[in-house]
Amino acid sequence: MCDHHLVKTIHGHHCHNGWDNSNPPAAHVAPGTTLEFNCHDSSAGHFSAASTLGDVLTMPFDKINPVTGPIFVDGAAPGDILKVTIDSFKPSGFGWTANIPGFGLLADQFKEPALALWHYERDTLAPAAFGQFAKVPLKPFAGTIGVALAEPGLHSIVPPRRVGGNLDIRDLSAGTTLYLPVEVAGALFSIGDTHAAQGDGEVCGTAIESAMDVVVTLDLIKDTPLAMPRFSTPGPVTRHLDAAGYEVCTGIGPDLMKAARDALSGTIDWLCREHQMPAEQAYMLCSVCGDLRISEIVDMPNWVVSFYFPKIVFS
Amino acid sequence: MCDHHLVKTIHGHHCHNGWDNSNPPAAHVAPGTTLEFNCHDSSAGHFSAASTLGDVLTMPFDKINPVTGPIFVDGAAPGDILKVTIDSFKPSGFGWTANIPGFGLLADQFKEPALALWHYERDTLAPAAFGQFAKVPLKPFAGTIGVALAEPGLHSIVPPRRVGGNLDIRDLSAGTTLYLPVEVAGALFSIGDTHAAQGDGEVCGTAIESAMDVVVTLDLIKDTPLAMPRFSTPGPVTRHLDAAGYEVCTGIGPDLMKAARDALSGTIDWLCREHQMPAEQAYMLCSVCGDLRISEIVDMPNWVVSFYFPKIVFS
Repeated sequence: MCDHHLVKTIHGHHCHNGWDNSNPPAAHVAPGTTLEFNCHDSSAGHFSAASTLGDVLTMPFDKINPVTGPIFVDGAAPGDILKVTIDSFKPSGFGWTANIPGFGLLADQFKEPALALWHYERDTLAPAAFGQFAKVPLKPFAGTIGVALAEPGLHSIVPPRRVGGNLDIRDLSAGTTLYLPVEVAGALFSIGDTHAAQGDGEVCGTAIESAMDVVVTLDLIKDTPLAMPRFSTPGPVTRHLDAAGYEVCTGIGPDLMKAARDALSGTIDWLCREHQMPAEQAYMLCSVCGDLRISEIVDMPNWVVSFYFPKIVFS
Repeated sequence: MCDHHLVKTIHGHHCHNGWDNSNPPAAHVAPGTTLEFNCHDSSAGHFSAASTLGDVLTMPFDKINPVTGPIFVDGAAPGDILKVTIDSFKPSGFGWTANIPGFGLLADQFKEPALALWHYERDTLAPAAFGQFAKVPLKPFAGTIGVALAEPGLHSIVPPRRVGGNLDIRDLSAGTTLYLPVEVAGALFSIGDTHAAQGDGEVCGTAIESAMDVVVTLDLIKDTPLAMPRFSTPGPVTRHLDAAGYEVCTGIGPDLMKAARDALSGTIDWLCREHQMPAEQAYMLCSVCGDLRISEIVDMPNWVVSFYFPKIVFS
């Protein structure tokens, strides 16, 4: 929690599905206030340690990804920036990763549901076992973090937008400061969809989905335009993953999306061949620890997207 | 050079422009041979310490990006993999970065030529001064590294392809092993376009372009299909850049290319505003040290591309 003084806890029943600037605030706070949010996992508690594969198909899609809030920040007005200092995470110790049919970068190839359950040390955050296959380093963050849109009405929680939301940015972890453009009076900040670990891309569509308490400090920068979310990390972002180097497959061509799919497919093939993993397990493992990077985007007409798989998970 | 025994030097006059499987080999070698290549910079020596802005417009585009080679590897046949162990680099100490009109991720916004010249310590590879603005950590690699295509005729050197070529992958540095699919007898390996530093994306279209001698070992893995280049790094890939953390701007939307452009534009705006840099200097600095990453590619219909700018260059 750094040097911030915790003022208030926002309990999990103060949650909403989707973004709507008419949602009643869970609290009004002064700029500079530090708050703890009880965040649900993205299934809203649907999965438990007793869950089985069939539970993937009975997910309540109208209730997914509830976010805790919204918080009305006194004095926040359109044209301001909401400065969100991400202080700390208290994870639950239980998590899940799923392949949900119709969702994910290779949805056309992985049409059957898959489910992995995780039990990790909530205090030490030691690397977590992925079955007998791998151990995945953890770095908790909130997948969904944002403010209300100016446009009235209910907006789906699924896509991220210029005001943030379901950003799924792996490095919005403890110590990072996030800047969001304010579009309505009070900003109306909400947070949820907490993840114990994820790679850049979140390629199978889910991370290590896990309920957590999150402490953040909300402050204002008045009258400063901002087009898109911006953030600043206090230090390195991949040292929990990089010590043993990476196995990298590339995708090359004129379409970044196809190149990303090819790079991921190459990595899944490699995991199946070299580490005897079933393909759907490899796909989920890639999602929680591997990174999609754009290696070059200027050598017309072909770009290179690379999938960086961290070898440390096998050590 | 690891434990490899240097057998032969391939001098710089053994170079070619473009890929053509009828190019006569510069040498025939047995699998397992270690070779030193004298690599030209991508301007084929057009730029020197005395160069000025006007020299950008007189670049000989028909002669750019000469690669040294090709090398005929005895026994290599279509369906094999050429295993390239990247042993070491001996950089020249001089380099250049340019904005070349019509080329680069923001070519529509940066229409005027720009040029930066670099003088760096070729032995210590200490971070190199970018004018009075920044100091950029160095990590030499070959931008262009590949084998001949099966298709006859001359193919432009500019785009990378399934057989490698102008990959511009920042992590093809000393210690990395690269795997390339062989498509013609002898593989016909060539290398060049050496860079002293580059970020993921090479966003302005050039890196720290710099002539170097490169030592690699060429070996064969017989009868193993490979769809796209693959590589394995021996350890971390960004520790020369990450110690002070990153300033990150995002681009969010349904098109990865536009999102990448927005993330870069946000970063350039931030550099201009917070570090008083002229925009074209910021653009070139981003190209030599900043990284394009795909933060999420599954939250339909909007993806997040992030540009990671390493704060260490200002420390």
